[in-house]
Amino acid sequence: MDSQQGTPTLGVGMVGYAFMGAAHSQGWRTASRVFDLPLRPVMAAICGRDATAVRSAAHRHGWAAAETDWRALVARDDVQLVDICTPGDSHAEIALAALAAGKHVLCEKPLANSVAEAEAMAEAAAEARARGVVAMVGFNYRRVPALAYARELVRRGRIGTLRHVRAAYLQDWLSDPEAPMVWRLRREQAGSGALGDLGAHIVDLAQFLVGEPLTGVSALTETFVHTRPLPAGTSGPLSSGAGDRAPAEPGGARAPRGQVTVDDAALFTGRFASGALASFEATRFATGRKNALRIELNGERGSLAFDLERLNELEFHDQTQPVADAGFRRILVTESEHPYLEAWWPPGHGLGYEHTFVHQARDLVLAVAGGHHAEPSFADGLQVQRVLAAVEHSAANDSAFTPVPAPPEPALTP
Amino acid sequence: MDSQQGTPTLGVGMVGYAFMGAAHSQGWRTASRVFDLPLRPVMAAICGRDATAVRSAAHRHGWAAAETDWRALVARDDVQLVDICTPGDSHAEIALAALAAGKHVLCEKPLANSVAEAEAMAEAAAEARARGVVAMVGFNYRRVPALAYARELVRRGRIGTLRHVRAAYLQDWLSDPEAPMVWRLRREQAGSGALGDLGAHIVDLAQFLVGEPLTGVSALTETFVHTRPLPAGTSGPLSSGAGDRAPAEPGGARAPRGQVTVDDAALFTGRFASGALASFEATRFATGRKNALRIELNGERGSLAFDLERLNELEFHDQTQPVADAGFRRILVTESEHPYLEAWWPPGHGLGYEHTFVHQARDLVLAVAGGHHAEPSFADGLQVQRVLAAVEHSAANDSAFTPVPAPPEPALTP
Amino acid sequence: MDSQQGTPTLGVGMVGYAFMGAAHSQGWRTASRVFDLPLRPVMAAICGRDATAVRSAAHRHGWAAAETDWRALVARDDVQLVDICTPGDSHAEIALAALAAGKHVLCEKPLANSVAEAEAMAEAAAEARARGVVAMVGFNYRRVPALAYARELVRRGRIGTLRHVRAAYLQDWLSDPEAPMVWRLRREQAGSGALGDLGAHIVDLAQFLVGEPLTGVSALTETFVHTRPLPAGTSGPLSSGAGDRAPAEPGGARAPRGQVTVDDAALFTGRFASGALASFEATRFATGRKNALRIELNGERGSLAFDLERLNELEFHDQTQPVADAGFRRILVTESEHPYLEAWWPPGHGLGYEHTFVHQARDLVLAVAGGHHAEPSFADGLQVQRVLAAVEHSAANDSAFTPVPAPPEPALTP
Amino acid sequence: MDSQQGTPTLGVGMVGYAFMGAAHSQGWRTASRVFDLPLRPVMAAICGRDATAVRSAAHRHGWAAAETDWRALVARDDVQLVDICTPGDSHAEIALAALAAGKHVLCEKPLANSVAEAEAMAEAAAEARARGVVAMVGFNYRRVPALAYARELVRRGRIGTLRHVRAAYLQDWLSDPEAPMVWRLRREQAGSGALGDLGAHIVDLAQFLVGEPLTGVSALTETFVHTRPLPAGTSGPLSSGAGDRAPAEPGGARAPRGQVTVDDAALFTGRFASGALASFEATRFATGRKNALRIELNGERGSLAFDLERLNELEFHDQTQPVADAGFRRILVTESEHPYLEAWWPPGHGLGYEHTFVHQARDLVLAVAGGHHAEPSFADGLQVQRVLAAVEHSAANDSAFTPVPAPPEPALTP
Repeated sequence: MDSQQGTPTLGVGMVGYAFMGAAHSQGWRTASRVFDLPLRPVMAAICGRDATAVRSAAHRHGWAAAETDWRALVARDDVQLVDICTPGDSHAEIALAALAAGKHVLCEKPLANSVAEAEAMAEAAAEARARGVVAMVGFNYRRVPALAYARELVRRGRIGTLRHVRAAYLQDWLSDPEAPMVWRLRREQAGSGALGDLGAHIVDLAQFLVGEPLTGVSALTETFVHTRPLPAGTSGPLSSGAGDRAPAEPGGARAPRGQVTVDDAALFTGRFASGALASFEATRFATGRKNALRIELNGERGSLAFDLERLNELEFHDQTQPVADAGFRRILVTESEHPYLEAWWPPGHGLGYEHTFVHQARDLVLAVAGGHHAEPSFADGLQVQRVLAAVEHSAANDSAFTPVPAPPEPALTP
Repeated sequence: MDSQQGTPTLGVGMVGYAFMGAAHSQGWRTASRVFDLPLRPVMAAICGRDATAVRSAAHRHGWAAAETDWRALVARDDVQLVDICTPGDSHAEIALAALAAGKHVLCEKPLANSVAEAEAMAEAAAEARARGVVAMVGFNYRRVPALAYARELVRRGRIGTLRHVRAAYLQDWLSDPEAPMVWRLRREQAGSGALGDLGAHIVDLAQFLVGEPLTGVSALTETFVHTRPLPAGTSGPLSSGAGDRAPAEPGGARAPRGQVTVDDAALFTGRFASGALASFEATRFATGRKNALRIELNGERGSLAFDLERLNELEFHDQTQPVADAGFRRILVTESEHPYLEAWWPPGHGLGYEHTFVHQARDLVLAVAGGHHAEPSFADGLQVQRVLAAVEHSAANDSAFTPVPAPPEPALTP
Repeated sequence: MDSQQGTPTLGVGMVGYAFMGAAHSQGWRTASRVFDLPLRPVMAAICGRDATAVRSAAHRHGWAAAETDWRALVARDDVQLVDICTPGDSHAEIALAALAAGKHVLCEKPLANSVAEAEAMAEAAAEARARGVVAMVGFNYRRVPALAYARELVRRGRIGTLRHVRAAYLQDWLSDPEAPMVWRLRREQAGSGALGDLGAHIVDLAQFLVGEPLTGVSALTETFVHTRPLPAGTSGPLSSGAGDRAPAEPGGARAPRGQVTVDDAALFTGRFASGALASFEATRFATGRKNALRIELNGERGSLAFDLERLNELEFHDQTQPVADAGFRRILVTESEHPYLEAWWPPGHGLGYEHTFVHQARDLVLAVAGGHHAEPSFADGLQVQRVLAAVEHSAANDSAFTPVPAPPEPALTP
Repeated sequence: MDSQQGTPTLGVGMVGYAFMGAAHSQGWRTASRVFDLPLRPVMAAICGRDATAVRSAAHRHGWAAAETDWRALVARDDVQLVDICTPGDSHAEIALAALAAGKHVLCEKPLANSVAEAEAMAEAAAEARARGVVAMVGFNYRRVPALAYARELVRRGRIGTLRHVRAAYLQDWLSDPEAPMVWRLRREQAGSGALGDLGAHIVDLAQFLVGEPLTGVSALTETFVHTRPLPAGTSGPLSSGAGDRAPAEPGGARAPRGQVTVDDAALFTGRFASGALASFEATRFATGRKNALRIELNGERGSLAFDLERLNELEFHDQTQPVADAGFRRILVTESEHPYLEAWWPPGHGLGYEHTFVHQARDLVLAVAGGHHAEPSFADGLQVQRVLAAVEHSAANDSAFTPVPAPPEPALTP
């Protein structure tokens, strides 16, 4: 029907089908139903190692075909864009191969598990761009309308000279010391813990909202719980080499435990080039905080505050109003004047978490169709990686203030 | 592919393609992607009077075919379920025809524009049910997880003997007296104004949460602004017969205005059979309130409070806790233990407005597949209609307390 | 020392020393310490029937003398102002005597237990005023800075043509059916229940903020719990004549119970002369709501919202701002530009409940010193009484809309 | 009258009469009116350098006598307790003299401008205590009922093993770069800027709530605005030595400016002995935040959160509840079961900022009367001073993690 309608298509191939795979599928399935797009995404193929599981996921999420080798997926003729939803340790290899094959790439965050990998990816993306190939990192929270609108307000000078950024990403799923071992707690796969999973988001958002990079950081990290029970039947990567076993319930057998090799929490302070101060906290031990990504900016002319647990709201304080009338106002970011909202529902009819993936798909399709730069770029992803590396360096060196190298190109530009 | 997978299908035909049409389409498209359903909804055909517009809507929303006559849609072999998203004045005719043809029916709220129509529909639904045909009214807010969970808490006795229900549905899109004329402001099409559009929702929710019907009401209604500018080029139903014209900008021509023939706001108090008191307010003039459907229940053992502008949250006060520790707690209704949530995202990753339509589609499919009763039933919709009629009667009679006839069958049962 | 300082004094005599007595004492003791006043209040004498208790109260609260007969208090030469903090059944007698004796009067709300008493009081106050004698009713919440500021904003046209007033005063101290009997639950002393105690406040505030009187009301009232256990050793007014006894703990003796003869809750709707609609709810059964006096005004140009549980805050929505930037802003009413605040602490250092009594004392002293009208006047109190009477009339007559007579003089004027 | 009543008195002499002097006066005047105290505070004398101003303050606040030399105040026979409300540079000298003279001492925070001074004061207080003399530091926020109750909950194990403390004290009175010069911006008088003024409070509160000291910190500090306009007619301490003058409005004369020699903001992270992580931020540039002292604790069994802008509320999350029912509950800390509240108003009738000084006076009087230890002690004040010194050291040394020496005695004990 598309050809009848004259809308060309964009074949998408996705690697990975867990949490992020489901979310990205919603994005690809919905984007052209809601937005007017010059290219219609087609969910061509999905890839995973377990043939049965990946076929089931294809059927559930609506992908036309299933592959078990990501190289085969990248090679498919009906795939023009590769969407990478795997753990961080495979990002670089897949992305480099896809870019080399001339495929557009969407890569989940964090971009890579090391700065070296991220540098190679950013370089490859810069080269690919010269050939009209687009690469984007999946910092989806830039596409929360309230945060996209916050960026607009900053750009328009509504908060003026910036003094403070205050960012935290608080979850609590590890606060129970008997919560089970998962791949996200193994350095080999995840790269880092709360830092890369949660900290990466708030570092990217801070740099995105402010419009300039962090120049240095000072950090503390901590692992509160060092071993965790392995899920029944676990072997291989999650089990601890030494076969240590924790005591089970009184009198019972000891349950095997795996070693946590990443941070449970990371706290850091930082400076922006313009002189503003920033604080960051990423943790999985903030009991009662489920998904509290909070960010506040204080400037000479105003302030902005956001909490992902209330994602349809943006708080804005306008210091230029008479003091007796001023206060943080709660803007319901659901008006057709707000970013992305014209295509959705009437005022006050809020969006949810998954809409960020619809918006991400939309923006990426527009960049591909228009042949222009997509943001956040791999260079932006590399910059975040450099901040994370500086955090780990500082934490390992008595919190010494650690410079972050400047971006390799005019990143963070509009 | 479905037959290969062994999942039988359910052909859906939808009448109407405006706001509700878009929302229902999201529901039908997504339900089987997220939930394990015994029947897979297939978006067979969509119907509207304007052939070009309905074809465009079909393409946009993903319906396989387009019809311009709802009778043709109802008659299609590939349609087993008719989803009615038109204004209230056509609900009865379409629903009765569909039920007579043995089709399952989902009908948008309010069920009808009069009690007589609603009675005929409820009777037809009761008869159809004996033949295994399912009918449901689209009071989608019952499917907000926080409200579904509130119902569970009430059922479990967590708030005890009920004393108060406090309900309001506040919008502000008419607070500007120059906001233009629309069909929702014409009695012939909409039946009533804020009362039927917003009041119907809070009456249904109150009866749903409490689990018993209202026995009587006392009401005030008001139309604050009696004429409104007609959109350019309007003729027919929206224009006022007398051709009255309002002054335009100073010195300019007078813009034609249409007559508002429905209420702008309705306030009413009521009683439940068990003796609890209730207050209701439905208005489109609550400046700054965009979609504030608020409901609070106070019982001897606890209280519940909800605001649709923060739809992922439920406030619960447990009076059985020690007084020094008690307070309204903000439950983020995003845990896998909460209604509908197991199929969605991790804790704290909120849902949006449209998810209520996914849940509605899921629940209706389950009822069709299982051959059981669907709620809210047409009898529930009739009961709401009777309350609305009593409100209008009271408002026309000096606010005299007006009894609401008891439900015609054991409605509102679990 | 005062005479040395050249500040003349104002001798105050207070009748009653329970909750309100303690609060008023704080007001009289503090007013001249914080505000520059032309007259320095002197706490001359306190009056109560129990000689021992009143002497103890005098010592505790800092009153120079104690009396056991209010007539003696009124007659004292060192008393120029009589502050009446007794239950409503004695207000009229004391106030009339005090005014006749040329004493200024501050009378707790509600002004009286009947319209007839209130009329006599308002008449006496009008006559006294001609002789330079000042009378004020203790609707202390007008002196919450946030509400005083709300009045200013309304006066300045910041909310424009009014459409809605939404007022509730929610408490929960009776939600336990075994909460004991107190004088506030006996019609003879209290006049009415939640209606006169809580409803009077929100009626006064609504009329104060709007600046015009209610023209009619429609009401429901209810007594949920008809008998309550008498405190040990109770006899006389609190015990029920018939000597009914409730069952105590299983197997135990039956505790004597008293009859509740007032409303537990009152719900009413109303209209203002200008056409705005209003809703009111006063209850002592709103479980978990401790002192939630809430009032919201919606106008064409903006809205205001307040909750006494957060008394330092006022929410203001400015509809004249661009829609993308608009939202309810939380004004911390603690700036020196706000009413009463210049005399207090730096911004953000909040006030409490009792400060309303300091402000009340200040405003009354200024009126006495300046010889001008004090608000809320007895005429304002009478107007509230008429609304309460109309509420009771409507509730007794099937909620029939009941007009409220217009104020007897240009009341509610600035 | 007191002797007649048999209540012995405690003569209080206060040094300083600005903001803190007014607040402490309220405390001394009110404490025995609200609480049953074994000693009745008598406001004997107030001291300040300007004879006219101090006499006026004495009259305003109700002090019986005025002195211009603090040594004379300390020497007065009718003064048994010296209350020091001066800037930090005079705390040590006055406190040491008062303790040497056998007078009880209440000293405003921070205890001193240097660790050396604070050590001398703590030593003198320890010696004095052996003679029955009591010394307390004015960390008044420990006496906010919500925070006192938070301490109770921690002590009872309601939050379990602690993981995180998140503390910030946000004000904005310097966010305008043209806000004028004041003594608080001069290192000689104030010791430090936001750090000592605001940071001291959150460090004390964190250690108080947790019940153990910080063991080390890593810090960034910043002065955003280096010169500020001098108030008209300023000479001496506030003027900058070099007589630098800032440009005034375009074309106008230059206004003289003074040098800011303290921090505008301080950010630091830290560790507690038990392994919990902490973050702190103190700033006067958080535009729109007026007095936002916020502190949150996350433990294995629960969390607590507080914001001074809503000082009657404490948020508590109980992780031991079923996950579907759990959430941060807003406890209105106004029940008679809560600390200090039995003496005040009914539930929901909130307190204000100044009540902390009433509670402080009460607790100090109880300690003096009972001859027991008062908290926060000078040792507690010294411990805070050591943290502040470590913060400054870290900030001056590239944010290097800087240990805080352990307390000199079993401080922070219950």
